[in-house]
Amino acid sequence: SVPSIPAWTLSIPDRERLIQFAIEAKEGSYSPYSKFRVGAALLAADGSIIKGANIENASYGGTICAERTALVKAASEGTRSFVALAVTTDVAQPLSPCGICRQVIREFCALRMPILLVPAGYTIEKGGIMETTVEGLLPHSFGPEDLELPRTG
Amino acid sequence: SVPSIPAWTLSIPDRERLIQFAIEAKEGSYSPYSKFRVGAALLAADGSIIKGANIENASYGGTICAERTALVKAASEGTRSFVALAVTTDVAQPLSPCGICRQVIREFCALRMPILLVPAGYTIEKGGIMETTVEGLLPHSFGPEDLELPRTG
Amino acid sequence: SVPSIPAWTLSIPDRERLIQFAIEAKEGSYSPYSKFRVGAALLAADGSIIKGANIENASYGGTICAERTALVKAASEGTRSFVALAVTTDVAQPLSPCGICRQVIREFCALRMPILLVPAGYTIEKGGIMETTVEGLLPHSFGPEDLELPRTG
Amino acid sequence: SVPSIPAWTLSIPDRERLIQFAIEAKEGSYSPYSKFRVGAALLAADGSIIKGANIENASYGGTICAERTALVKAASEGTRSFVALAVTTDVAQPLSPCGICRQVIREFCALRMPILLVPAGYTIEKGGIMETTVEGLLPHSFGPEDLELPRTG
Ligand SMILES: [Zn+2]
Ligand SMILES: [Zn+2]
Ligand SMILES: [Zn+2]
Ligand SMILES: [Zn+2]
Repeated sequence: SVPSIPAWTLSIPDRERLIQFAIEAKEGSYSPYSKFRVGAALLAADGSIIKGANIENASYGGTICAERTALVKAASEGTRSFVALAVTTDVAQPLSPCGICRQVIREFCALRMPILLVPAGYTIEKGGIMETTVEGLLPHSFGPEDLELPRTG
Repeated sequence: SVPSIPAWTLSIPDRERLIQFAIEAKEGSYSPYSKFRVGAALLAADGSIIKGANIENASYGGTICAERTALVKAASEGTRSFVALAVTTDVAQPLSPCGICRQVIREFCALRMPILLVPAGYTIEKGGIMETTVEGLLPHSFGPEDLELPRTG
Repeated sequence: SVPSIPAWTLSIPDRERLIQFAIEAKEGSYSPYSKFRVGAALLAADGSIIKGANIENASYGGTICAERTALVKAASEGTRSFVALAVTTDVAQPLSPCGICRQVIREFCALRMPILLVPAGYTIEKGGIMETTVEGLLPHSFGPEDLELPRTG
Repeated sequence: SVPSIPAWTLSIPDRERLIQFAIEAKEGSYSPYSKFRVGAALLAADGSIIKGANIENASYGGTICAERTALVKAASEGTRSFVALAVTTDVAQPLSPCGICRQVIREFCALRMPILLVPAGYTIEKGGIMETTVEGLLPHSFGPEDLELPRTG
């Protein structure tokens, strides 16, 4: 396994603000099929925070997760430089983004961008956050530059 | 083919305002792979307009179209009642949403909600819009209520 | 609504054989989340029949329906010319493909290719099949040729 | 980063046979949009090998990669126990599955199942394969069991 690139540092106030936005974002979940609510919040380089929640679909395959909702919302409004991501659910332990979201995160975010996985009922006193990075969740990733590589065959 | 349900009516000012938002939304497109920009705008029942643009991904399969970007943005912020949708591209004829988007539209929008397909370079004088509805684009649709039907083994 | 292109005709034996394959295909469903089994069968131009079933995923968004399973299976083995599609579920009425599948069907199948929606418990005596076409399920479709259109903007 | 679970071992003949199937599978690619061919081969516990290739779609989002094609093909035919996966492209270095595929692999394969990333033009003499595992590509994964966790909120 590749040596992990350490995440850069968030200030405590930025971090706690981002977590609160992720918790609030979860209220926007539309999850009648899984009953599994997820909230996400992206901290942009300009200090703004973009929220997202999972939006399910009767086809299942048409479902868009919280992380991707936040990313396409930001990217379509011209915000494409991000500093951190927080994700939370209704489960009392930190849960990880699915692989689809990891790939969409990879399109826009630096490999060492911090990702905070926040348990339900989080308080700064209780803690329990799992901290990782884009590279920590998607090692040896396939990215935009791979489509440019010379091809034989 | 089922008899088509006629769309409800939009006022001219609502219609033109919605079209202008779809044209503006296209500026937010991230389409380095297809070079095919798409903009969408949703008119909500409360009069607000939500914009979306297509956000592509190096995996291709992770791409999210303009229509779905607008829908998940709105739905995750609690706006889930819509009155009309406009979609535009850089092509000088009206183009239609893909089937994936039609399915996600179907989750939240009435079958007779009007959908305006707007050619590039549209002006009210030139016209050229194709008007259809959710049911016009996705007849005999599979929807949330189908998942509730009784099943035999 | 556009005038519907009439489907071409299947012989009764081809039709019944295709339906039986779709019913058998349903046994291959992996649907622990929705508990909604779907089977599909594609009749290729060379007379072979390719089966598919829905394969769900814990991410929901990673789910691949029966129709798409059959199509990618066939297409990846070099079979890309199709004559008919049959789809069935555990519901005692004919149900329709989702929009995602309609779009993938559109990539490989003629607009007037017949699609048979088969109720659970089907027998030739009971009947109850709904017959439609690619164009009947995805009117005004977005297809490969649209990506080639000249663009302004 | 979590301690990586070592992959189990493949015999040389199994390994080389699997690689040859992945190389052959690439011939089935339908990739008119990216011009990026990918082939995949899954070794099942019963010794059979299931091939897949990437099948693209004009919507981009409807694209299904080689790895997923192989998996849904196998799973829909009742083969759901796998021993190894090999993936190859037309690029002369080993490239990795996208995150969507990693998530679908995760649904059916053990965390320590070996995954072989095979450069174009591979021969046993030249080597150059990158070996990893499911867990190596999708650490801290979200999986089926996470949907069963007790929820608050
Ligand atoms: Zn996700
Ligand atoms: Zn679309
Ligand atoms: Zn489908
Ligand atoms: Zn993939």
